[in-house]
Amino acid sequence: MTQPAPFAEIWRGPFLESVHSGHAVICDASGQIVDAWGDPDLVVLPRSSSKMLQALPLVRSGAADAFGLGTRQLALACASHEGATIHVDGVNTWINELGLDDEAFRCGPQESRDRNVREAQIRAHQSPCRVHNNCSGKHAGFLTLTQHLKAGPDYVQPDHPVQRACLEAFEEVTGETSPGYGVDGCSAPNYAASLHGVARAMAHFAAAPDGSAEARLHQAMRLHPELVAGEGRACTELMQACNGKAALKTGAEGFFIAILPELKMGIALKAACGTTRAAEAAIAALLVRLGVLDANHPATLKRINTPIKNWDGLVTGMLKPAQNLL
Amino acid sequence: MTQPAPFAEIWRGPFLESVHSGHAVICDASGQIVDAWGDPDLVVLPRSSSKMLQALPLVRSGAADAFGLGTRQLALACASHEGATIHVDGVNTWINELGLDDEAFRCGPQESRDRNVREAQIRAHQSPCRVHNNCSGKHAGFLTLTQHLKAGPDYVQPDHPVQRACLEAFEEVTGETSPGYGVDGCSAPNYAASLHGVARAMAHFAAAPDGSAEARLHQAMRLHPELVAGEGRACTELMQACNGKAALKTGAEGFFIAILPELKMGIALKAACGTTRAAEAAIAALLVRLGVLDANHPATLKRINTPIKNWDGLVTGMLKPAQNLL
Repeated sequence: MTQPAPFAEIWRGPFLESVHSGHAVICDASGQIVDAWGDPDLVVLPRSSSKMLQALPLVRSGAADAFGLGTRQLALACASHEGATIHVDGVNTWINELGLDDEAFRCGPQESRDRNVREAQIRAHQSPCRVHNNCSGKHAGFLTLTQHLKAGPDYVQPDHPVQRACLEAFEEVTGETSPGYGVDGCSAPNYAASLHGVARAMAHFAAAPDGSAEARLHQAMRLHPELVAGEGRACTELMQACNGKAALKTGAEGFFIAILPELKMGIALKAACGTTRAAEAAIAALLVRLGVLDANHPATLKRINTPIKNWDGLVTGMLKPAQNLL
Repeated sequence: MTQPAPFAEIWRGPFLESVHSGHAVICDASGQIVDAWGDPDLVVLPRSSSKMLQALPLVRSGAADAFGLGTRQLALACASHEGATIHVDGVNTWINELGLDDEAFRCGPQESRDRNVREAQIRAHQSPCRVHNNCSGKHAGFLTLTQHLKAGPDYVQPDHPVQRACLEAFEEVTGETSPGYGVDGCSAPNYAASLHGVARAMAHFAAAPDGSAEARLHQAMRLHPELVAGEGRACTELMQACNGKAALKTGAEGFFIAILPELKMGIALKAACGTTRAAEAAIAALLVRLGVLDANHPATLKRINTPIKNWDGLVTGMLKPAQNLL
């Protein structure tokens, strides 16, 4: 196996304190590798970075149109949201229109990452709901497709029509037969592919014609970056900084993808150690490299060449991207 | 530079999802390396793993005895505590006896990691105090020594008598001239050494005679594991599982040390990527290797061969230690 390539360095004072490495592939619309670091053939679980693939059957089946879903719902279907009020209200309104409530979700309850929502729940002695789970928008999409297909309620089972449709779409756009799945944080199957396959899928999205399911999904993400993650988060801030030139999506265990419609390219990357700070630094560096992100934008500087502050607000160190990525 | 060695693997379903590597040294009382993985000469910042070194001047100077400090205070001086009631009350009582209050601390305020304390503060619309900082016990020690030396209040400045004494003790027990320092999360200087030097210091502690400052400190840690970290934390649970055979201390950015008095050995290790789960897996594996920790103790199994659960409580994967450590 090819060793991972340098991704990022953590400095404290004059000392290199920690180092991150990983694997990254930039792919073009023909599926060819434009550039790669580490091992393009690494088998990966793209986790939440594959949410737009998991939303393909929702749109392709006609379910999204039959239920009148707009771009906000499509963005939420692709989101790992903060559980802030805009996300929770958006998903609750959506599933209420389906005649469903929190009990219909098959994702577990998760404490909101939004400070206001979290602290309001603590003060009210309320427990987090399933709608606060960062994946609840994806699950609202699964529930919509379940109703459209008149299928049973256990929509996270691998043999459920929703998940069978997800696997079919996944294999089509990655161009690979998936070697299997792991169960994700939200209990849905997460299918494996090579890193190259995931990058190929993202390039396929980038090159998809207007009006296609793929284009509608990445347009929705780029139109509503605040719904895809939340205030202060990398996906949201970097998409805003890219001014519509990129749909971006993080995934657990150090995953990140980019869909670049103008360039008709896709990026997939994985920090070998599974660390978010490394994946964020790497995606920012590659977006700068490809000219879709300003190296000096505040959202960029928050992920690369980032001052590290301590509990008293003193700058104690710096996160630097590996020079080979820039 | 020698590459880091495998430390731990993260599996999800049948797939290896993430990998951790790092550097580790086991040292004997003569300062010789018994076993090493990765690069023993790596220059490291041991962060909070060096708190017992930073507490040496407190005891050696006579300050601890002059102020009547007991084993609970000495354990808190070496702690990265949770900010639970036992920690906060213990440190507040200590500094109140010095005639000081929260304003005297030079560490920044930090939200308590203890759910009860944190949620009570949120419900009361209170902000975290400096005493809630995980390092407040170390700072209470610095304040005690400051009073004993009749020195000025800025005890985290590198030229302050307290920090000069810390550097002198650090260089003596590591057996090295420190190449410098980084500013720690609590604003105190954190001196650098080789990983071998840190392991040598821990072996020096392990072999120190009863009644010495070194022995009093590691005895206090082993006597009060619940004060050194807190409920559910690795230092506390693994020290309890070792039945007094090890004083253990984590440090930020994937550091961990062990002082093993019966074996007269010390361990220092650093996860290259700075990840806590990797450092915890590695220290547990090495303690099992040396026969001081039961491989099947629940505290061990929480750090190695650890089921990973998702938001709905489903087991989705496993953390496994690298076999070369066991």
